[in-house]
Amino acid sequence: MKAAVLFKTGEPLQILEGIEMPPLTRGQVQVKILYSGVCHSQLMEVSGGRGEDKYLPHLLGHEGVGIVEQIGEGVSKVAIGDKVVIGWIKGEGLDAPGGKYLHENYTINSGSATTLSEQTIVAENRLVKVPNGFPDKLAVLLGCALPTGLGLVFNELQPEKNKTIAVFGLGGVGMSALLAAKLYEPTTLIAVDINPQKLELAKQLGATHTLNAQNTDVVESIVTLTKGGVDYSIEAGGKTQSIELAFNSVRDQGGLCIFASHPPEGDTIKLEPHAFHRGKMIRGSWGGASMPDRDIPKFVDAYHKGLLDLDVLITNEYSLDNVNNALEDLHQGSAIRSIIKCSEG
Amino acid sequence: MKAAVLFKTGEPLQILEGIEMPPLTRGQVQVKILYSGVCHSQLMEVSGGRGEDKYLPHLLGHEGVGIVEQIGEGVSKVAIGDKVVIGWIKGEGLDAPGGKYLHENYTINSGSATTLSEQTIVAENRLVKVPNGFPDKLAVLLGCALPTGLGLVFNELQPEKNKTIAVFGLGGVGMSALLAAKLYEPTTLIAVDINPQKLELAKQLGATHTLNAQNTDVVESIVTLTKGGVDYSIEAGGKTQSIELAFNSVRDQGGLCIFASHPPEGDTIKLEPHAFHRGKMIRGSWGGASMPDRDIPKFVDAYHKGLLDLDVLITNEYSLDNVNNALEDLHQGSAIRSIIKCSEG
Ligand SMILES: [Zn+2]
Ligand SMILES: [Zn+2]
Repeated sequence: MKAAVLFKTGEPLQILEGIEMPPLTRGQVQVKILYSGVCHSQLMEVSGGRGEDKYLPHLLGHEGVGIVEQIGEGVSKVAIGDKVVIGWIKGEGLDAPGGKYLHENYTINSGSATTLSEQTIVAENRLVKVPNGFPDKLAVLLGCALPTGLGLVFNELQPEKNKTIAVFGLGGVGMSALLAAKLYEPTTLIAVDINPQKLELAKQLGATHTLNAQNTDVVESIVTLTKGGVDYSIEAGGKTQSIELAFNSVRDQGGLCIFASHPPEGDTIKLEPHAFHRGKMIRGSWGGASMPDRDIPKFVDAYHKGLLDLDVLITNEYSLDNVNNALEDLHQGSAIRSIIKCSEG
Repeated sequence: MKAAVLFKTGEPLQILEGIEMPPLTRGQVQVKILYSGVCHSQLMEVSGGRGEDKYLPHLLGHEGVGIVEQIGEGVSKVAIGDKVVIGWIKGEGLDAPGGKYLHENYTINSGSATTLSEQTIVAENRLVKVPNGFPDKLAVLLGCALPTGLGLVFNELQPEKNKTIAVFGLGGVGMSALLAAKLYEPTTLIAVDINPQKLELAKQLGATHTLNAQNTDVVESIVTLTKGGVDYSIEAGGKTQSIELAFNSVRDQGGLCIFASHPPEGDTIKLEPHAFHRGKMIRGSWGGASMPDRDIPKFVDAYHKGLLDLDVLITNEYSLDNVNNALEDLHQGSAIRSIIKCSEG
């Protein structure tokens, strides 16, 4: 099979053919991948932002959709022929290591869920069946972007009506959080990014205000607009600076910033202690506190009811051969979410 | 009257005599001060750590005990002759500005509650009557140290039994928090400071472990001791570094750091974003969330029942003339809480 392989951090992924699939062990499932997503986590892995990488060479990608081809011992959640979401967030089922793939005379490692290949071996607990009638390409995002962005709002914030909310960073996570936040009828819903097209789209999707962080003092603008700061800020900009801006934009006495970004290892966020005394709060989000088996059906249901215009999220499609271009475009911030076609359906 | 006056940040306080008391306006109360405390806040004010000071010259000190001498229009909470706690935390009653005192041909400013003088003018809402039978010198600490340190535990943490707790910084706030924490029967109660005498006292008061931050890797020690980090850390060390240590010492998945320190304006705490994703939490405390009118009687009651050995907290006493020595000793970290005798009782 063909896969994108990371051999050395700081270098492009190599597209290799003829990788051998190993036999399945307990809890593992073999999946033919239709589409994979790419997100900030892969950028971090490739650039070395996660620190020393002890598993090189290895596969990567952690959201995708595919068809079950084989199941290992003990697997009962899915059957051969099922269409499944592959995601990084643990759900029900057996845990298992990823595959150890053979290529020529060396081994290629992988985690319990990787997706940037024609086929993959995934732990049962990283799979959820795709609910009927949900589009394949959108199903990719059920592995990472949607549980994180929608979960941040549906599971973690659960804002009351008439609150003020700001969303920092309009990628797949931020834009889906914006869609979810809109459902809670905030009086003010501010979208912040540095890309004018994304800001324009956010406005169409219901943002009441947009701010371009490249040419605006975002904190000052938000404090002025909301007379003191927003009730909630949701951060998915990928950088420590965007976390700091999001924290500084919430109001004193109970304003809450929740951030999803995983900046490079060793980077720190610098926060003013007195802001905490004045009652600002900050929390990190782990995958939107989503439980895939419980939440994926809910997200799909909201989509089918027309509550979430998720189709706008996928802006670019690439072949597996062009995955490095997809990563570069993601790095530039031009795409909301890009998907990679990994094999024919 | 005699008072300690700050004329210029970075310089010692000047002790002036012959300051004129102005007439009372609505909501103000004139108090003869018996004792005042000194805490980190005054160090910050004197050193200029609070940024530009627009009120120079001014009085300072924000915890004390005294006798009501006169009441202004509208004041009903206290009467002439009452013994009162003066504190910085707002309670019931009228708010009012501090006095504008005349000396020679210039005005000396003051906030709504200052205490480092023979007499003072205080807003009604910064006064609470001292409950019967509570020692005068300890009553001083009801203005700042005790509501903060005890409130942190009684109002904010309210830990369940059998938790692990670490206290960083054993001044008046930290040591009283330690006394309060002990009542919740933690399995492990770790005291951290750089002063061996304070650590020894903490042990006598019930700390199960003590760590000297000057010669120990505190985070590593706590993580080892507690197999992953404490459930709660309470920080009152006065520095951004101690806040960072306290945050890094709590466990993943729900460990909570609450800090009371107010480091110099502009200083930031540097925190690892991934620690938040792993579920560590941090909050700032505003005076232990204490409501003076509600909480002071509770604290006094616990003392009278023998639950809180508060007498150990006052370690040094100075005359008003020697207030600069008191501040210097506080800066050196040798005292738990020092009090200043401001006038004869
Ligand atoms: Zn992702
Ligand atoms: Zn104080």
